[in-house]
Amino acid sequence: MKILLNKSKIAIIGLGYVGLPLAVEFGKKYSVVGFDVNSKRIEQLKNGFDSTLEVESSELKKSELLNFTDSTDDIAKCNIFVVTVPTPIDQNKCPDLTALKKASEMIGKVLKEGDVVIYESTVYPGCTEEECTPILEKYSGLQHLNVKNMHQVNAGFYIGYSPERINPGDKLHRLTNIKKVTSGSTPESAEFIDNLYSSVVIAGTHKASSIKVAEAAKVIENTQRDVNIALINELAILFNKLGIDTQQVLEAAETKWNFLPFSPGLVGGHCIGVDPYYLTHKAQSIGYTPEIILAGRRLNDNMGSHIVSQLLDSMNEKKIKVDGSRVLVMGLAFKENCPDIRNTRVIDIIKELARLNVTVDVHDPWVNIDEAKNEYGIELIEKPKSGMYDAVIIAVSHLQFADLGSEAIKKYGKKTHILYDVKYLLKPNESDLRL
Amino acid sequence: MKILLNKSKIAIIGLGYVGLPLAVEFGKKYSVVGFDVNSKRIEQLKNGFDSTLEVESSELKKSELLNFTDSTDDIAKCNIFVVTVPTPIDQNKCPDLTALKKASEMIGKVLKEGDVVIYESTVYPGCTEEECTPILEKYSGLQHLNVKNMHQVNAGFYIGYSPERINPGDKLHRLTNIKKVTSGSTPESAEFIDNLYSSVVIAGTHKASSIKVAEAAKVIENTQRDVNIALINELAILFNKLGIDTQQVLEAAETKWNFLPFSPGLVGGHCIGVDPYYLTHKAQSIGYTPEIILAGRRLNDNMGSHIVSQLLDSMNEKKIKVDGSRVLVMGLAFKENCPDIRNTRVIDIIKELARLNVTVDVHDPWVNIDEAKNEYGIELIEKPKSGMYDAVIIAVSHLQFADLGSEAIKKYGKKTHILYDVKYLLKPNESDLRL
Repeated sequence: MKILLNKSKIAIIGLGYVGLPLAVEFGKKYSVVGFDVNSKRIEQLKNGFDSTLEVESSELKKSELLNFTDSTDDIAKCNIFVVTVPTPIDQNKCPDLTALKKASEMIGKVLKEGDVVIYESTVYPGCTEEECTPILEKYSGLQHLNVKNMHQVNAGFYIGYSPERINPGDKLHRLTNIKKVTSGSTPESAEFIDNLYSSVVIAGTHKASSIKVAEAAKVIENTQRDVNIALINELAILFNKLGIDTQQVLEAAETKWNFLPFSPGLVGGHCIGVDPYYLTHKAQSIGYTPEIILAGRRLNDNMGSHIVSQLLDSMNEKKIKVDGSRVLVMGLAFKENCPDIRNTRVIDIIKELARLNVTVDVHDPWVNIDEAKNEYGIELIEKPKSGMYDAVIIAVSHLQFADLGSEAIKKYGKKTHILYDVKYLLKPNESDLRL
Repeated sequence: MKILLNKSKIAIIGLGYVGLPLAVEFGKKYSVVGFDVNSKRIEQLKNGFDSTLEVESSELKKSELLNFTDSTDDIAKCNIFVVTVPTPIDQNKCPDLTALKKASEMIGKVLKEGDVVIYESTVYPGCTEEECTPILEKYSGLQHLNVKNMHQVNAGFYIGYSPERINPGDKLHRLTNIKKVTSGSTPESAEFIDNLYSSVVIAGTHKASSIKVAEAAKVIENTQRDVNIALINELAILFNKLGIDTQQVLEAAETKWNFLPFSPGLVGGHCIGVDPYYLTHKAQSIGYTPEIILAGRRLNDNMGSHIVSQLLDSMNEKKIKVDGSRVLVMGLAFKENCPDIRNTRVIDIIKELARLNVTVDVHDPWVNIDEAKNEYGIELIEKPKSGMYDAVIIAVSHLQFADLGSEAIKKYGKKTHILYDVKYLLKPNESDLRL
């Protein structure tokens, strides 16, 4: 392997929540081309603005060797390619590898002997070598080097996998202070990739023994989180039926040293609600049905409808007619204090209510109005009106809602209304209904 | 409520892993009668020996106000009764409340106005008030005082629930340094019970808002652990099929700050493999089927048979005939470095192998030979012989097995044999098979 790190030119393919912070860090030390197919995004970044709010303008400026482009020509001269494109699921909850395959095709067309292609996108174990590598080989006409052929094949490229661990909106856990798992298709390339990342990640790296191990490690992280939240959701549903306050139970249990503090709620976003499906897809393809992971997914995917049915019960008790009623949903982002609406499950509440002929107003001070419109066809309201609603649902615990407080939130409601605090934002006695 | 703590006489009903340490701590400050139906146990304790190895003889001596008895007459003068009897499951995995009900009957017969009965046994939410209290009322002819009747009823007794959090064999987390959840049937009795426990538990107490909340908090602690181990077991089975080493994946994932370090394995013992069934029993009785918890239980209960089928595959590959073979199982206790064999799932491996006409030798340096014989009809062997076995299974990671090391363990095997390291006691390359 003849690549010299300090003479390398790195292309980052995909400049979203994952790619941009990575491009910025690499761009402080190495010559970097940040590529995205979204021209508007490139334009904004060139103007020093990151609409995901992950990177401040001042940080962008510090990355002096980083240039942005939406033209494939500009990546041709690079010799290290890092793929950070989205790997979502389709409508059947199956892996949607479209972006990953397109990126591989694009890279394959410019790939040269000795180049390194590193994938960061979350996939199932085996995906990088089974799905991406053949595309790179096809379009480059080169072979990839691995432990089996590295002593026979002369001309080829290297593959690596280093899973992203970006936590959107988290200002404490950043790229540079989260330990990073690395791997490569040969011992040499694994070492090279490990050195590449450890040169920018202060927290250090963990070199996995194979690409598959690194892929598996990534996909189980969010799977574990998903199952843990699902368990708490299952408990919340049960305790609700038993007339026990879930939060009080959790508070008592959390006084034990090894109880894990998870909270019930909607599970959305690009990771936790998606990654497990990648793993279960692979499992099912080899004839194994992962019961626990799938039970967790089913339960979490069903929470929106559970929340609506709880609300309907309460409205019924208070003699509020559901048909033709008006409900305020506070929060659309998939998590608190973050503009990210990718795979938000608040949408399930909204759709379910709309189906019941309820007029739903959605208010979220964090979310971009155009994005909500384009993504979900929702016209966010800038400010809810007083005395307007038959029910108010606090769906996301944004700081702004906590600052408002229960009195101000209750004022949005009609004289008789239901206030549903899904996120335990208020004190137990300040709402009519809690998860 | 007229009880004065310093003039109280406490009866502890059931002197097992939970009751004895509690009796010992209370007996340092208060007059305590430790009761158990097992006369042999009482005799041993009177002689200063605790066969569960939870309390040292020197500790027993320090508890100067503690007396042991197997006679119900001796508890008649007590005014505080703490129930620490086992709550196992029956053969249909349903709660077996026999000991709990018998203890309640016994206490009911001696119960006086103003007395306090505190349950520590793990139960489902509602059990104390629905199952135990009516028995106490029936045999005492008194009413229990609660928030609904306390202003009307004059003569009655109080109920409390303070779940045990004893971790058998754990020398770090002891009764006095584990925060304890308390609760009572009235605000006054809740306060009294909280003071009682906080006078001996240095780590302090958490007063739950109701008995039901305290019951629920306890039962979800081990349920959460059970589900987490089940998830890792599910992953281990999957990675096994994909040819990926589970431990390597877990090691990589654990470099993330919020990944929870659980390991695959058998889930036995009196708590983790049992408590979830209490919760699911209650859930199903009200028509709710907790999918995740039950999926976890199914998977964990099935691990013994999974381990055997993995072993058979390997024996087959190495052309070792299963029928008529001889297998050494190292470890019978439900966890490492502890003599506790209650609900050990190692038994599943032993039974499954015996069913296949395999001669199974079981070796466990921690377990009492008579207890293994009485409980499971197993004749433990004191020392395995060299060159004797077609397969060796390290089922429990006792210190002694680690000290032996792979070379010594391999010597138990015939020239061609399988060494199955269920517990990752050895390095990856030192065994033929891992979970």
